Amino acid sequence: MTIRAGVLGATGLAGQQVLVALAHHPWFTVTAVAASERSAGRSLADALREPSGNSRWFADGEADGAARELPCLTAGELLEQPLDLVFSAVSRDVAQSWEPRFAERLPVVSTASAYRYEPDVPILVPGVNDAHAEALYDQRRRRGWRGFIAPIPNCTTTGLVISLKPLQDAFGVRTVMMTSMQAVSGAGRSGGVLALDVIDNVVPHIPGEEEKVERETRKILGAWGEPAPFPVSCTCTRVNVHDGHTEAVFVGTERACDARSAQAAMENFSLDGVRGLPSAPERLLSVSTDPFRPQPRRDRDAGQGMTVTVGRLRDEPVLNGVKYVVVSHNTKLGAGKGAVLLAEWLAREGMIERAP
Amino acid sequence: MTIRAGVLGATGLAGQQVLVALAHHPWFTVTAVAASERSAGRSLADALREPSGNSRWFADGEADGAARELPCLTAGELLEQPLDLVFSAVSRDVAQSWEPRFAERLPVVSTASAYRYEPDVPILVPGVNDAHAEALYDQRRRRGWRGFIAPIPNCTTTGLVISLKPLQDAFGVRTVMMTSMQAVSGAGRSGGVLALDVIDNVVPHIPGEEEKVERETRKILGAWGEPAPFPVSCTCTRVNVHDGHTEAVFVGTERACDARSAQAAMENFSLDGVRGLPSAPERLLSVSTDPFRPQPRRDRDAGQGMTVTVGRLRDEPVLNGVKYVVVSHNTKLGAGKGAVLLAEWLAREGMIERAP
Amino acid sequence: MTIRAGVLGATGLAGQQVLVALAHHPWFTVTAVAASERSAGRSLADALREPSGNSRWFADGEADGAARELPCLTAGELLEQPLDLVFSAVSRDVAQSWEPRFAERLPVVSTASAYRYEPDVPILVPGVNDAHAEALYDQRRRRGWRGFIAPIPNCTTTGLVISLKPLQDAFGVRTVMMTSMQAVSGAGRSGGVLALDVIDNVVPHIPGEEEKVERETRKILGAWGEPAPFPVSCTCTRVNVHDGHTEAVFVGTERACDARSAQAAMENFSLDGVRGLPSAPERLLSVSTDPFRPQPRRDRDAGQGMTVTVGRLRDEPVLNGVKYVVVSHNTKLGAGKGAVLLAEWLAREGMIERAP
Amino acid sequence: MTIRAGVLGATGLAGQQVLVALAHHPWFTVTAVAASERSAGRSLADALREPSGNSRWFADGEADGAARELPCLTAGELLEQPLDLVFSAVSRDVAQSWEPRFAERLPVVSTASAYRYEPDVPILVPGVNDAHAEALYDQRRRRGWRGFIAPIPNCTTTGLVISLKPLQDAFGVRTVMMTSMQAVSGAGRSGGVLALDVIDNVVPHIPGEEEKVERETRKILGAWGEPAPFPVSCTCTRVNVHDGHTEAVFVGTERACDARSAQAAMENFSLDGVRGLPSAPERLLSVSTDPFRPQPRRDRDAGQGMTVTVGRLRDEPVLNGVKYVVVSHNTKLGAGKGAVLLAEWLAREGMIERAP
Repeated sequence: MTIRAGVLGATGLAGQQVLVALAHHPWFTVTAVAASERSAGRSLADALREPSGNSRWFADGEADGAARELPCLTAGELLEQPLDLVFSAVSRDVAQSWEPRFAERLPVVSTASAYRYEPDVPILVPGVNDAHAEALYDQRRRRGWRGFIAPIPNCTTTGLVISLKPLQDAFGVRTVMMTSMQAVSGAGRSGGVLALDVIDNVVPHIPGEEEKVERETRKILGAWGEPAPFPVSCTCTRVNVHDGHTEAVFVGTERACDARSAQAAMENFSLDGVRGLPSAPERLLSVSTDPFRPQPRRDRDAGQGMTVTVGRLRDEPVLNGVKYVVVSHNTKLGAGKGAVLLAEWLAREGMIERAP
Repeated sequence: MTIRAGVLGATGLAGQQVLVALAHHPWFTVTAVAASERSAGRSLADALREPSGNSRWFADGEADGAARELPCLTAGELLEQPLDLVFSAVSRDVAQSWEPRFAERLPVVSTASAYRYEPDVPILVPGVNDAHAEALYDQRRRRGWRGFIAPIPNCTTTGLVISLKPLQDAFGVRTVMMTSMQAVSGAGRSGGVLALDVIDNVVPHIPGEEEKVERETRKILGAWGEPAPFPVSCTCTRVNVHDGHTEAVFVGTERACDARSAQAAMENFSLDGVRGLPSAPERLLSVSTDPFRPQPRRDRDAGQGMTVTVGRLRDEPVLNGVKYVVVSHNTKLGAGKGAVLLAEWLAREGMIERAP
Repeated sequence: MTIRAGVLGATGLAGQQVLVALAHHPWFTVTAVAASERSAGRSLADALREPSGNSRWFADGEADGAARELPCLTAGELLEQPLDLVFSAVSRDVAQSWEPRFAERLPVVSTASAYRYEPDVPILVPGVNDAHAEALYDQRRRRGWRGFIAPIPNCTTTGLVISLKPLQDAFGVRTVMMTSMQAVSGAGRSGGVLALDVIDNVVPHIPGEEEKVERETRKILGAWGEPAPFPVSCTCTRVNVHDGHTEAVFVGTERACDARSAQAAMENFSLDGVRGLPSAPERLLSVSTDPFRPQPRRDRDAGQGMTVTVGRLRDEPVLNGVKYVVVSHNTKLGAGKGAVLLAEWLAREGMIERAP
Repeated sequence: MTIRAGVLGATGLAGQQVLVALAHHPWFTVTAVAASERSAGRSLADALREPSGNSRWFADGEADGAARELPCLTAGELLEQPLDLVFSAVSRDVAQSWEPRFAERLPVVSTASAYRYEPDVPILVPGVNDAHAEALYDQRRRRGWRGFIAPIPNCTTTGLVISLKPLQDAFGVRTVMMTSMQAVSGAGRSGGVLALDVIDNVVPHIPGEEEKVERETRKILGAWGEPAPFPVSCTCTRVNVHDGHTEAVFVGTERACDARSAQAAMENFSLDGVRGLPSAPERLLSVSTDPFRPQPRRDRDAGQGMTVTVGRLRDEPVLNGVKYVVVSHNTKLGAGKGAVLLAEWLAREGMIERAP
């Protein structure tokens, strides 16, 4: 008996990516979708095709045929459907008002940032901060909800925390400084990055991004309710890359750590948290010794877009630690497929289940 | 009476950039050029045109018509010409063997790295470390040369040291961490970056670059003979940009410094060193308050490619200092035109002059 | 006494390009500007700066300082100003309703397509179809206007007709087939091309573009009131280029024509029409014999963006004529600066003058 | 019993693509590889790794583990191996001298152009000109070889002829005019396209390409020994795309043809020639009705890179026929995997077999 999933924001790019990640899923079946008013009354397939014949489907990969035949509901209508789970792939503002209404009734796994910083909302990265999931019970109880809101992190945070986690476990982290070179797909299509702005160019600012990464990294890598004590300082830039965020990271550690021991820690990073989940890769974290890797174009699809690749591990003399470059797929691990992985993990933990 | 300049490596991309910087120059006249064997016996204009009709001229801008009519000499033949100055724009290996032979006779201003790390060779950036020029007298004396070798820094170092200099003067620099996003023109054409490697991509490694920047920055910003005491840690990457290096810099300072005071220091950075020189811009360093600047495509040509632009000045909590992004033109300020500016400065100081 | 020019749509990208083309203009002075409601009551400089500090100025080059201090009027307010000329740089829809209201009172030179296909509206390219300007008198009379509407062509048409004109004069044109590779700046910023769509890509369709080019080319190169009798067939694509449209053109001619004679015809193409105008280049049309030229990045700025460059002239055996590649600057010659050139030409012809 | 395949040029990019196409192949096993002298004595895996640790493997996908352990032979040594087939993936010059020496003994399937234009060498595209394969028997007999040389076409020809074939069959082709926008991977790595040349740019010339496409198209679509009677006129350009050639095609037909009937003909294009071959896609040719397709980034991987996608089918009034845009994967269908498909086809026809 599969778990019935709804998708809020199904026609947007993030929603499409969720649908791709749910195609042929062994546990979850998309049984209802919601989109903006202008799609109302049309099937998802119809809503994704302009009258002029051109497609509004922009994700790599395809949705299930059955999902494509579903009618586009309004958010309010979606709320009335018999569902076991909702994936929310809407903008911050829509998430702000609708996610709690869904969470009253059922689990919400979200790609939106609206509730990430609430004190009773954990930002879960399976395999990294699994213990924070306990907080969902508190959230549910305090808010009087049957469900909960479980957001994934910002796509830039994801690669960072997965690469930092084994260092934190092995050596303790004292300071983190990071410069990102982010792909344009992170900005989506509505309000997306203009070609005019990135051709032959770097844009040195992504509004709000640095604050998110700094805050989320400390929340995820801290004990629950207590941000990690180390400071995180970022410069986030946009480069002429389609998919795959690249981050140059400088880490100071509590205990002595060099490139070799950091590599060993990363290579031993256990998959226990996610092993066996349908969307889990063979490795969450892979280390390359080729000095020219990782590269977003060549490494973003490692592990079907779910493996984070670290390279250029070197001693970091200024901070007393290591420096490296990390690449992760911002729209797979960092968005749709990452949300599905989280839902899988929550399902295995018994926090999402088929309603009787 | 103008100063007679020779150009070694005149057909290469770096040499072409020197020739553009010398076009219509009020002080220097190119009176002889040397290129590789295959150009021997042809005029520079001829050597820059393939038999098939396509041009091998790749620099922006043009050389003087008179220079284009000069015959391409061998390096050995160039050595015999009556010259007051040679610009060396050759590869490291060629520079290694030929620059000393020229320096026996006359001043050599070089874009090559071959001698940058010799203890008696200053890496001069006019306006930044003018006092180091004294060392050229020692170099001359110790080596028994009539001339000297005066290299400019690596193009990535240039933007960094010009942005650091006012911070060093005002607050003292304690630590520097930098991630660069470098343009492909920095690699030149021979052995240049393949389109295959940077389309939709970032390459996280440029062999030798980080070592150069770390070493040169400390040499330039130190007292003569004594590298600056602060550590510099870099990650150098290549991005899909034609010209203009972008660097995300994190600086820890000796004395309290915040974004506002750093901006004031940078804006007050004096041009005394270079004011009045023909290739000097109105400002060596400019600060933008637009949070989306500097961008390489939009800011590299500031001051005809000779102004360094800083933006995104923010407090840096981890290192106790400031962080910012800096853009500089790697083939103008950072190469040909920067070499010409240095020659101008040396001429004004009386270190390059018309032979009687 | 300078001619007083208003700019409708001054804050948009096209309007900014008009303002740049009018900076320090010897004949025209911008004395009033209009923009959308949200700019009302602010100076142009203010309207071009977001509260967050980032600039909304995206054109290359700068506007006159005096123009930047002008208050942003509404279109209705602009209509009340004492002006001798209006540049209209608005969208098709806004042009549709506002250009006639301005033309009732004064000359309108427009970058918009709204009136290009009206039977009494010539699409003027100075130096190409000067005789069509007569039609403006009829337009004025028939419509009962004191002014007129004079649109420039679509930016893709411009390079095509300037390269075809000497062939038409010398050999007669029988057929034209063209494939364009267009820069993203042609789409502007509002509704502009997303980076997601052109990174590592070609988009093989630009809605409405092929129809425009086919229709405009025949209108411009025909006798007045009678489209040129030859067919024009186009495929218009978008490529990952910032500025500069590239077109591969195959031309069948009435009379025998080979690459050599076509080159001679193009090189002899007279500038009589535009010589002496402030924005006119030294040559409207230049022929390169380098087989790797023209290239948009390297040739778009020829003649300060006002020279069209043709290259790869070869015999065309299928159509009995010639084939070639042409590059023109779509936002200079093809938009703002081209509109200013047209206004200059009209002024010299006495069709725009200082009101007493 | 599998067929033993050798790969000549195994370390080059084309050779790597052949190796990927042969990975886990049901019929062919790579039992020997040859590379240039500098790889001699090393395993293929070793030869593909620089001493500095960086990989020289640039193809998408991987070679068989067993193949990677093979020693790199010289061409002469490869000649002595017990093989049933050789894939030649070397430069034109190397092919010129070595392919005949291999063909004396065994079948050679080649990506090189060296022998394509010989009168007794067919350029085979399975499913398009299968009847030309008969010529291999003549070639063998006339040259006294036990094997033969069977080259695939230039990668730009491939998409063109596959899209033209159904039109030729249904309507007859009278004229073809084509403008290509080619990916940089077509130029390989050695002598590859520099990033400097294609960033923000189009290069309007690829030496020799137009002649190849014109000649090969007529040879492939003609009767054997008699080039197709219609002229083909091309302009070949290079754009900033990694993989996937885009071609804007204008076709004049013998018999009346419009967009609708052309679409039907293309959709009915039979796969009989290649059906059931391991590397054959479900469709060799697919027609998109989305006006914004095909795009190289989004359509090159259709059918695992073996399906050609046509879109924008429109009536072509000038030539009396149709015009369209076609995208094909230049390094899969157009190179390594296309060569393997040809070898499969030849094996099924009994022209390549396991030696006893």
